[in-house]
Amino acid sequence: MHQRSYILTISCPDTIGIVAAVSGFLTAQNAFISESTHYGDPLSERFFMRTVFRTNAEAVSTQAFTHGFSRIAERFHMVWGLHDAARRARALVMVSKTDHCLNDLLYRFRTGELAVEIPAIVSNHPDLAPLAEWHGIPFYHLPVSSENRRDQEAAVLRLVDELEIDVVVLARYMQILTRSTCERLGGRCINIHHSFLPGFKGQKPYHQAHARGVKLIGATAHYVTADLDEGPIIEQAIERVDHTYGPEALAMVGRDIENIVLARALRFHIEHRVLLNGAKTVVLR
Amino acid sequence: MHQRSYILTISCPDTIGIVAAVSGFLTAQNAFISESTHYGDPLSERFFMRTVFRTNAEAVSTQAFTHGFSRIAERFHMVWGLHDAARRARALVMVSKTDHCLNDLLYRFRTGELAVEIPAIVSNHPDLAPLAEWHGIPFYHLPVSSENRRDQEAAVLRLVDELEIDVVVLARYMQILTRSTCERLGGRCINIHHSFLPGFKGQKPYHQAHARGVKLIGATAHYVTADLDEGPIIEQAIERVDHTYGPEALAMVGRDIENIVLARALRFHIEHRVLLNGAKTVVLR
Amino acid sequence: MHQRSYILTISCPDTIGIVAAVSGFLTAQNAFISESTHYGDPLSERFFMRTVFRTNAEAVSTQAFTHGFSRIAERFHMVWGLHDAARRARALVMVSKTDHCLNDLLYRFRTGELAVEIPAIVSNHPDLAPLAEWHGIPFYHLPVSSENRRDQEAAVLRLVDELEIDVVVLARYMQILTRSTCERLGGRCINIHHSFLPGFKGQKPYHQAHARGVKLIGATAHYVTADLDEGPIIEQAIERVDHTYGPEALAMVGRDIENIVLARALRFHIEHRVLLNGAKTVVLR
Amino acid sequence: MHQRSYILTISCPDTIGIVAAVSGFLTAQNAFISESTHYGDPLSERFFMRTVFRTNAEAVSTQAFTHGFSRIAERFHMVWGLHDAARRARALVMVSKTDHCLNDLLYRFRTGELAVEIPAIVSNHPDLAPLAEWHGIPFYHLPVSSENRRDQEAAVLRLVDELEIDVVVLARYMQILTRSTCERLGGRCINIHHSFLPGFKGQKPYHQAHARGVKLIGATAHYVTADLDEGPIIEQAIERVDHTYGPEALAMVGRDIENIVLARALRFHIEHRVLLNGAKTVVLR
Repeated sequence: MHQRSYILTISCPDTIGIVAAVSGFLTAQNAFISESTHYGDPLSERFFMRTVFRTNAEAVSTQAFTHGFSRIAERFHMVWGLHDAARRARALVMVSKTDHCLNDLLYRFRTGELAVEIPAIVSNHPDLAPLAEWHGIPFYHLPVSSENRRDQEAAVLRLVDELEIDVVVLARYMQILTRSTCERLGGRCINIHHSFLPGFKGQKPYHQAHARGVKLIGATAHYVTADLDEGPIIEQAIERVDHTYGPEALAMVGRDIENIVLARALRFHIEHRVLLNGAKTVVLR
Repeated sequence: MHQRSYILTISCPDTIGIVAAVSGFLTAQNAFISESTHYGDPLSERFFMRTVFRTNAEAVSTQAFTHGFSRIAERFHMVWGLHDAARRARALVMVSKTDHCLNDLLYRFRTGELAVEIPAIVSNHPDLAPLAEWHGIPFYHLPVSSENRRDQEAAVLRLVDELEIDVVVLARYMQILTRSTCERLGGRCINIHHSFLPGFKGQKPYHQAHARGVKLIGATAHYVTADLDEGPIIEQAIERVDHTYGPEALAMVGRDIENIVLARALRFHIEHRVLLNGAKTVVLR
Repeated sequence: MHQRSYILTISCPDTIGIVAAVSGFLTAQNAFISESTHYGDPLSERFFMRTVFRTNAEAVSTQAFTHGFSRIAERFHMVWGLHDAARRARALVMVSKTDHCLNDLLYRFRTGELAVEIPAIVSNHPDLAPLAEWHGIPFYHLPVSSENRRDQEAAVLRLVDELEIDVVVLARYMQILTRSTCERLGGRCINIHHSFLPGFKGQKPYHQAHARGVKLIGATAHYVTADLDEGPIIEQAIERVDHTYGPEALAMVGRDIENIVLARALRFHIEHRVLLNGAKTVVLR
Repeated sequence: MHQRSYILTISCPDTIGIVAAVSGFLTAQNAFISESTHYGDPLSERFFMRTVFRTNAEAVSTQAFTHGFSRIAERFHMVWGLHDAARRARALVMVSKTDHCLNDLLYRFRTGELAVEIPAIVSNHPDLAPLAEWHGIPFYHLPVSSENRRDQEAAVLRLVDELEIDVVVLARYMQILTRSTCERLGGRCINIHHSFLPGFKGQKPYHQAHARGVKLIGATAHYVTADLDEGPIIEQAIERVDHTYGPEALAMVGRDIENIVLARALRFHIEHRVLLNGAKTVVLR
């Protein structure tokens, strides 16, 4: 029999018997649980679970499986998802002129470290077209201004629909999306901000960091929401600096952190490890 | 009804149905699972699990519970433990003349950060008696030499038995225990070694680190085995240094790392998060 | 002849010939330079220097030395200081009820890692008196309220004068000093703030960090100014956390960072490594 | 007058008057010192200095300058170097089949972050030729076996001579150079080893790390010497891992560390920040 791996994610009010019901059901389907993590938040009293199991593909694709699990899901008021672990998420990457994050993502894509498809790269500038081309990825140059912002974003959203995009990655896109686009892409649009949020929101964070004289700089990957740089944080990292670093030197050090933080956040997302808990994330490793 | 928390740890050959059996049993006992982590090692094909659950104390203390769970344990060939989460582990701390780890442990003990009892501090030197005294802990001065080593260790082991010690902490004890004592304390004796193992085993690791010119120094907490500095690693950390650090400066920086690594390892141990997987540990957070 | 070490610190407008003038003068006095670091800030166009030299004590104490160096200092418009490296800075430590920073400072003081005298510990609560007592340090209980704040701070400042205090350390003092006291203690009063500034200023930063869902928490040591949590940053560090950490767990992890950051900042200060550059610091290692 | 920046490096026995002599000489030449760091090693009693100064280009190129400085150098028995700060070091990069370090170096080269020329990439395998080609860099496929090792290395050394190479970078070259080649390239050949040396020397360090169960993995950039993985360490970094990481996952995490450590080490080297102190390095930042 053909064995496949599946990822099951669950979020629901915390109570007695959830794990037993889910694992009992999976065992009844002859599924081998290879990974499982859960977390009950004492504050929100919500339960979060991610389980990876192996079973024969036929079992899972039957109506019996979905039907059976739906009954458990209803009983516990679950928000849930079932994902074929082998299916590659489809990512649309948005960039501006800055290329380090794109370069890094494409390297990890090319080597298979990031198990994604990248059906499109969108930019408001033409500069990074050659990089996209070398990796054989369609590049869409969609300029944006205060006049055409709604139309441009509509074009992006059409691409998201037509290309069946799972996740939009703002890899130093440098434009603020409109509220409605943020809402349309809720929970599936990741931005990298080049500061250790909540410090230094908004424009030119490395200049802000230099002016404040901090001794560490950081980067933050978060889901985009309508409130600028206030979305749920997925991952952060920092590096040590000192008084000798001007804004350019900070930016140079920062590029490495941005690359790593964005790549990690995207990997967590496509591996279905990130569950939303209000304005925060639960990252189940 | 009086609710209590329990920690259940399991290690067994990996197979289908373990989680279902365990969580099904717990649910049948009306237990609320508040934390649970497991890990299946693809190499050793062993399964490791730590589950924290809340239920009424009467239920767990009955023969029915133990009897019921024993049948599951037998079926899956489990090594298992059931621990009252509120019970404080009893730790015997062994020291020599160096006091930073002891000072740090006692601070964390005093503030309740480390939920242990410390019925005894043992040392081969009298120097740290006043520190023990200030914290109201019995101090046993048991000098050791190549002549009396077996007798001295026998005295230590008698204390371990009489005081019903759960874990022995070598907080810079600086003596090598004999093979038989290592074996007697297998899996319940934690040592802090002041290097990033496997680098710089043995004597004077900071001098070794200085001679080698490393750019980071570290510390390692591990279970003691008969092979010096080769026991299963529980926790490690490092700090950045540079060419200006002589051996004393390295030792100064190192003290902070040693304190933190030892305290974390001990906390993981007493919270029953550390399971042995051959010569390695699985630390379930 | 009796050799002594001295630390010379200089801050002045950057120009040609400063190092030559200073090192030429020192060589003429037969001084052996054992350490020297400088930094020219391209933005403020100021030059910062810290030089450690050894020479015979008689040479430095003569009027000839001071007179000679004063001429160089005038020529380059220097702000400068000359410090006997063996002289221990006199630190007054202010605390409230939280004891981890005090406990840590006292340990480092007792072992000589921090080469300070501590002639007084001041607190607005009596709780930490026994800890002070055990270390043989006078403890001043000076309660504070909105009514008596000015009087209480006047009492603190009298202690600063009478005890010839070099540096005031706010080791989790938890009170906001008045503007005039901040100004009186400008550049010689160090505070530890339990967040990675500029994030989470003000009250209950661990609760703020928890609410925001950050993936790293930090601590910041800075000079106190009249603008709350806005003073020049001396040192920062962070530690990784995740969604499972509630405010108490964040505080527990944070204590270790606070201890280390405050101890480092104080060490940098008493070793005369920290020079002010507007609202920022230059830390010459 | 045309102003240029120069980097002066000095290593000599430590004594009185070095800084005064050097800075006095530079001031006499109307040079503005923009950066300067020195270090006296108390153990080897050697003095190390790196000074960056700006002056008019004509002054430095005259015989008077060299002649004048040579007299100081002789007096203090200096090993010294004077480098035009604007001149780009010429790097030859050697690779095998693994491409992450090459990809990273080429990105930093292309964006100017690494101010090098790369006149050649040498590999014992043809696999990375397309990557070299895309960046417009000549690729030399020089296969190696136990039979032709001396000839192959002779070909490499001819390239080093003909292309006037300053530094050879072993960017995961995976071959052990012969003793004579190591000696020929002494102090100008940098290797990246994928472990935190001195732990896990030799083959397959990530497999060794997995077998030992370490909780952190690292990478080390060092100068190549005839003793495998024993050369002077330039830079190291680590990342946290846990029991869930198999050798492949360790390698994935490790790639980021290797990239960053190698890039930093190369930057330190080409900025003439790395001076040899016996079997160790002094890295003057």
